[in-house]
Amino acid sequence: MARNRAYLDYNASAPLIAAARDAVVNALMQTGNPSSVHLEGRATKAILEAARRDVAALVNSKPDHVVFTSGATEAASTLLTPHYTMGRAAMRLSRLYVSASEHPCILAGGQFPADQVDVIGVDQSGLLDLEQLRALLVAHDRSQGLPLVAVQAANNETGVLQPIETIGALVKEFGGLLVVDAVQAAGRIPLDITTSTADYLILSSHKIGGPKGVGAIVTISDLVMPKPIIRGGGQEKGHRGGTEALPLIAGFGAAARVAKERLDSGGWPTQKREMIEQSVRAIAPDATIYGEAVDRLPNTTMFSLAEMKAETVQIAFDLAGIALSAGSACSSGKVGPSQVLAAMGYGDGTGGLRVSTAPDTSDEEIALFLEALKIMVARRDRSKPAAADAA
Amino acid sequence: MARNRAYLDYNASAPLIAAARDAVVNALMQTGNPSSVHLEGRATKAILEAARRDVAALVNSKPDHVVFTSGATEAASTLLTPHYTMGRAAMRLSRLYVSASEHPCILAGGQFPADQVDVIGVDQSGLLDLEQLRALLVAHDRSQGLPLVAVQAANNETGVLQPIETIGALVKEFGGLLVVDAVQAAGRIPLDITTSTADYLILSSHKIGGPKGVGAIVTISDLVMPKPIIRGGGQEKGHRGGTEALPLIAGFGAAARVAKERLDSGGWPTQKREMIEQSVRAIAPDATIYGEAVDRLPNTTMFSLAEMKAETVQIAFDLAGIALSAGSACSSGKVGPSQVLAAMGYGDGTGGLRVSTAPDTSDEEIALFLEALKIMVARRDRSKPAAADAA
Repeated sequence: MARNRAYLDYNASAPLIAAARDAVVNALMQTGNPSSVHLEGRATKAILEAARRDVAALVNSKPDHVVFTSGATEAASTLLTPHYTMGRAAMRLSRLYVSASEHPCILAGGQFPADQVDVIGVDQSGLLDLEQLRALLVAHDRSQGLPLVAVQAANNETGVLQPIETIGALVKEFGGLLVVDAVQAAGRIPLDITTSTADYLILSSHKIGGPKGVGAIVTISDLVMPKPIIRGGGQEKGHRGGTEALPLIAGFGAAARVAKERLDSGGWPTQKREMIEQSVRAIAPDATIYGEAVDRLPNTTMFSLAEMKAETVQIAFDLAGIALSAGSACSSGKVGPSQVLAAMGYGDGTGGLRVSTAPDTSDEEIALFLEALKIMVARRDRSKPAAADAA
Repeated sequence: MARNRAYLDYNASAPLIAAARDAVVNALMQTGNPSSVHLEGRATKAILEAARRDVAALVNSKPDHVVFTSGATEAASTLLTPHYTMGRAAMRLSRLYVSASEHPCILAGGQFPADQVDVIGVDQSGLLDLEQLRALLVAHDRSQGLPLVAVQAANNETGVLQPIETIGALVKEFGGLLVVDAVQAAGRIPLDITTSTADYLILSSHKIGGPKGVGAIVTISDLVMPKPIIRGGGQEKGHRGGTEALPLIAGFGAAARVAKERLDSGGWPTQKREMIEQSVRAIAPDATIYGEAVDRLPNTTMFSLAEMKAETVQIAFDLAGIALSAGSACSSGKVGPSQVLAAMGYGDGTGGLRVSTAPDTSDEEIALFLEALKIMVARRDRSKPAAADAA
């Protein structure tokens, strides 16, 4: 591998940042179980609690309102359940409402049977159909339990931002609970749980530069909580059993701290994304950039090229040294039509190419991508008359 | 902390071995999501599959029969469910049978309601009451579903080994499924899933020298599987969603490889345990060593001293530089009477002190422990006549 490669797949997994690596390695060296009361146990407990403070701070929550999980998928599977408790009293959520463009871990519906899940459409820009949500909440039978709504702050494929405040106000109007999948938004745009109308945020470490295999549920209060799905010792105040994944949690804390510092000092620049999109349009004027008319993450561009199947183009990019995605990377290497694009009305199977970056993505990486794109589009354009001749 | 400390709490958490640390650090440096199809994704996938082979080999299973989880507690919470599938058909397990000395993550009963769980007694040595198990299986109503039995291979507090083959034969006689919590046994005694009569083994990385936060379900076949509790992308062949905790899994694989090599080259020596127990008896002839008449792990001694509350003694040991446990370390720093000892008929609240070692526990560490024990016992004996005078 003498050739340089460009990694433009931050939404699949962000490379580990140095501070997170150091935190993981330091925690690895600590002997002891955070639940043990001896010196070694207390030292690991201190690492755990420092990380909890850092993760809480990223979304302006309190350390007591952070429950560490093995990742966002576990967090979603835990939160999407009919079984909640308010204090010690059981509380029933009778129906789940999700948008059609959610991540598979939300669309899977958690512990809800499929017939208790309603999927709300999105428009061609990827925005949730608020009228449909309202109609469903009006029709919701509260005698069976409260409504539970789960939406993304930012879409993993297109980067489109949902109007969380508006959605939350609607959910509150009908006495429901709102779960916000903030996996792709966290660290990239400011999030404040105290003003967001979300009852629960889902976070993932490896999307913000921390290690894979850890995430969190962040709550606005710990009064109303889902019944745990992983039960054992009384870890995480009884909300999630099992010895804590200390090294990963320490790395997650460090990544959250760095992400917070970046947001506090000006946030993510959007210039890279704008430059990429202008260049894509210049190279391929027929390109479709999904969600381009609405607010999106500063780092994500999903586009497709007429007559070029995204899955094929993705492989060509990989061979040319550029790592990017056709859709999302959530199904064990399986590639298939993007459910997100289908939900937005682009179900013709062309698929989309996702370019996702970080502030430290280099100009060379972007140039490598644009150069390869140029060659591929030129090849397509050359083959067009030939195809016409052959026909 | 100029003084040396002795770490004699391997059953709570084993220090990370060097090979596992190196594997974690190497995997940390790999960018990419194992589900991504580009070069970076495939490199992480290769690490994942190599670890899967190593973990399978530890218990003579096949890589395809290993499902990685965030730890043993998640594995238990997943396996202890009424909802299984055989191929694509639903299969119901209507009742759960566990022994009274199980780890809290088994006693919690997973997804079973409390009234569908039967707890089977153990005798004073900690061995499961086979007659009671047989009687319960005879009475089991198979029209409602099959019986599910969950027992430990080795107890976490006493190290007592259950007669897994006998239990498994009984479970098979009644057409049930057997889950074996092999967390403390793995790597310490030979385990072979092909001859063990277990349908499922539960493993934990940090008890065998790997990192905290990862474990596995190992199955004898993947035909009959529990309904996943963590659902999302199709990772782990659909049995467990969520991006894999790559660094931890890599470390787990390395620890499993080293554990297997040690077992293959003679296994764990029992001399240290025997020396510790002889010394404890010499220092305190009135000491009770739990399960001493039956087969136990080569590394675990649970004992108590008359008139000395274990929780208090544990703190004194910690101050003297010795990390050991009073009971197990599974409830977030809470100390309380040992449920295991209570199940064995020692419910007077004295509690037990657990000393658990590894082959590389040094003679100096054991000497430090015995020296402190000597001082504490002498102090107790001196205070006896004084107490009598005061009365």
